[in-house]
Amino acid sequence: MKDLNELFHHMLKDVLYAEKQILKNLPKMSKQAQTPELKEAFDTHREETQVQVERLGQVFEMIGKSPRAETCDAMLGLIEEAQSVMTEAKDPDVKDAGMLAAAQAVEHYEIARYGTLVAWAKELGLTEAATILQQTLDEEKKTDQILNKLALKRVNRQAKAA
Amino acid sequence: MKDLNELFHHMLKDVLYAEKQILKNLPKMSKQAQTPELKEAFDTHREETQVQVERLGQVFEMIGKSPRAETCDAMLGLIEEAQSVMTEAKDPDVKDAGMLAAAQAVEHYEIARYGTLVAWAKELGLTEAATILQQTLDEEKKTDQILNKLALKRVNRQAKAA
Repeated sequence: MKDLNELFHHMLKDVLYAEKQILKNLPKMSKQAQTPELKEAFDTHREETQVQVERLGQVFEMIGKSPRAETCDAMLGLIEEAQSVMTEAKDPDVKDAGMLAAAQAVEHYEIARYGTLVAWAKELGLTEAATILQQTLDEEKKTDQILNKLALKRVNRQAKAA
Repeated sequence: MKDLNELFHHMLKDVLYAEKQILKNLPKMSKQAQTPELKEAFDTHREETQVQVERLGQVFEMIGKSPRAETCDAMLGLIEEAQSVMTEAKDPDVKDAGMLAAAQAVEHYEIARYGTLVAWAKELGLTEAATILQQTLDEEKKTDQILNKLALKRVNRQAKAA
């Protein structure tokens, strides 16, 4: 990686991989979720993620590259953590609290990455790409807030009563 | 993991591992950083992290457990990404931008985890633990903001000019 263009392209591939992993794993998490609002949050975010993958495709096109993903070790680790809580938490309410926390860690990874991508796109004069990436960034922040409210309103209390 | 106490204890071990990894890797990042403010941010955060590890020790004590770390796959992935940008970015300004972004991803992981730990501590009635963990959460958010400003003010522009 010799310049900011290449760094941007590299992170785009990393984030595409991350989104595809999320797309694959959200249905599993939704299936195991017991709290209806949590299941709904996972399902809604799965639909959003589908659109986010398409947006990434548009950004790849804008920089004249094909939408190729590159293994993102951080996301693999985050998914691994989510899977381990699904296996190890025997009580369904405890599992919900653990899955919700894992999903928030995933959202925060994306908030960091899209925040950087938006800043780099602006620096590189890729105004349209920055606008598209900002849409996704806003969605990730909103999803994190929804999960946060749900944790405080219901899921943590249920887990405590388990 | 059968209840929220065990989930809390599990995440505490995970975060202790994460902090120890950060402690080990920040000096390497500082050594490779070219922008003085970035080097300073890494050094300051290393000192903060030392205190954060001690705080975790206090929380372990409060719940009557010994401060044992447990491998955190997500942090290993995040560190792997930081190391790969240090190896692959040949230009020092591009490397600074990549390392700064990697550090922000690490901060966001911690923001998510400490946010959850604070919420769980409160739910479990561990008021003092919640206060201690909140101090770290505030520091992580502040570090992310410092890095963000530095990216926008200087580091990204330098990388673009590389």
